[in-house]
Amino acid sequence: MKYYPDASGSLTYPEVNVAIEEVFAEHGRGNVQMPPKIYITFPEGDFRTMPASIPSQNLAGVKIVNVHPGNPAHGLPTVMATIILINPATGIQTALIDATALTDMRTGAAGAVAAKYLAQKKPLTIGLVGSGRQAEAQLNAIAAECDIEEVIVWSRRKENADRFAGAYQQSPAKSVRTIEEACNCDLLVTTTPSREPLIRSEWIQPGTHINAIGADAPGKQELESALLARAEVFVDDYEQAIHSGEVNVPIRSGAYSAERIAGTLGEVVIGRKQRSSADAITIFDSTGLAVQDLAIARIVVERMEGKEIEEDNRLIPPAP
Amino acid sequence: MKYYPDASGSLTYPEVNVAIEEVFAEHGRGNVQMPPKIYITFPEGDFRTMPASIPSQNLAGVKIVNVHPGNPAHGLPTVMATIILINPATGIQTALIDATALTDMRTGAAGAVAAKYLAQKKPLTIGLVGSGRQAEAQLNAIAAECDIEEVIVWSRRKENADRFAGAYQQSPAKSVRTIEEACNCDLLVTTTPSREPLIRSEWIQPGTHINAIGADAPGKQELESALLARAEVFVDDYEQAIHSGEVNVPIRSGAYSAERIAGTLGEVVIGRKQRSSADAITIFDSTGLAVQDLAIARIVVERMEGKEIEEDNRLIPPAP
Repeated sequence: MKYYPDASGSLTYPEVNVAIEEVFAEHGRGNVQMPPKIYITFPEGDFRTMPASIPSQNLAGVKIVNVHPGNPAHGLPTVMATIILINPATGIQTALIDATALTDMRTGAAGAVAAKYLAQKKPLTIGLVGSGRQAEAQLNAIAAECDIEEVIVWSRRKENADRFAGAYQQSPAKSVRTIEEACNCDLLVTTTPSREPLIRSEWIQPGTHINAIGADAPGKQELESALLARAEVFVDDYEQAIHSGEVNVPIRSGAYSAERIAGTLGEVVIGRKQRSSADAITIFDSTGLAVQDLAIARIVVERMEGKEIEEDNRLIPPAP
Repeated sequence: MKYYPDASGSLTYPEVNVAIEEVFAEHGRGNVQMPPKIYITFPEGDFRTMPASIPSQNLAGVKIVNVHPGNPAHGLPTVMATIILINPATGIQTALIDATALTDMRTGAAGAVAAKYLAQKKPLTIGLVGSGRQAEAQLNAIAAECDIEEVIVWSRRKENADRFAGAYQQSPAKSVRTIEEACNCDLLVTTTPSREPLIRSEWIQPGTHINAIGADAPGKQELESALLARAEVFVDDYEQAIHSGEVNVPIRSGAYSAERIAGTLGEVVIGRKQRSSADAITIFDSTGLAVQDLAIARIVVERMEGKEIEEDNRLIPPAP
């Protein structure tokens, strides 16, 4: 088994977006094995185990990733991830990959694929609700697929939105004081860990596309249920979205029904589903797929050499 | 994250059996989180992902293990495993443990716990059907808990049984030509990958205890369904056993019913369940629990020092 430390700096969004789009297509065709991610919960957080295989790419493996919201107070990242790749023919575990930053990239890339297929085809005003690492990943990934006219950023802490807007150089960017202002856009990206809906339906114009990224566990919700009811919702994966995506709370409460989901992003990519009209509001409900992790891991092991873990490693019994 | 190469040589069955018995007790009390193992299948085999946590031991993690029956023809083990341990408080992945040989030990130890509680309390004649690595693990683990009077070994290839019996020195051991002869025992241990029942009900005497170890995937079965119907079956875990244990085929065919399962080994360990009489035939249906892997991993990280994986590891981009 070879170890690959963080390789995100060697990867670019154009190549990652292509790889992610390919696996969404395979997912849309039903050509992957991907059981819903499994949660183990702790008082302080959880960890998720995400096994999958993509036969057409001769790829298999599992991502292991935690979410501990209190970690930053102790100087640790909230989310830390590794991917183990497995040779389908022999079962040998070939690679252990530091996947913390790769997880940000592959999630950003899914948002870019959704924007490419579901947002309007024109220079876009992008609204960001949330200004953390995933907001940055979404914006950079989308910039590789779409023309961006302007970026409008809201954060719970105004100084974070200011910092984000100030740091973004590729297009005009400004911070705003209210969520409603950020919703005055063509493409809205929500990346908060909220458990209370932040986005009110009345703030969203016809034709808007929304990447709903933040909700990835039961109980999380960023969009008012009435907005889902008005929109065409495309999920990354039915089972995962119903369990832990943006739709999970409204489905549990009865405010939304799983039968109303318009399709998966994979089905959109392969042309089986699409937005019904230019005026429709579309939502991409992202929970994060294990096949996305395999896709980005493949780039890493093809690009990098890694290092044998066993080599030079001796097990040292402690002194008696 | 520290890497721990194979530490099985530093572990003894008395200590492993104690640790395994403890986690079966916690499982019996309902004090663990352990979703059923997840299977990803390939043309040549499969891999299984097994996450779990044991709050009382502050232990969490996941085992990743393959089963590729054709591997030995290519000079590779059929089964290869690693365990990743996770700090429940922070989600940090603390240890990557080579768990191939540990998997043999923790499975053997489960058989020893079952024998301790369910086999007769006297010097035992042990029948082995199957003479591979797991037969050896079972025998050595059981020898730490029970007096062994004699060992009778059958294998599909007689020379393997001869070799096994010749190599075992702790008690008298002999190989036999027929499965029926091996069944003339107090404690029968079956460790074959059979998909056809090998053990006929009429060969088993009242009072016999059977460790049914081989069946660990849908379609596998070692014992005639009529034998299950006659016996008191204790599973390691209901969901896993019904999906992939010795009972999976008879339940699917209707020859056995899940309601007839007598209990779990954990319930036996904590005294909530037991064999009903000295004459009852008891069966331990082992599928292998993720909490067993955590238990043996804990011994490894307490005993050994391992080595930081990141240290001295540089990611090398290949020459352009």
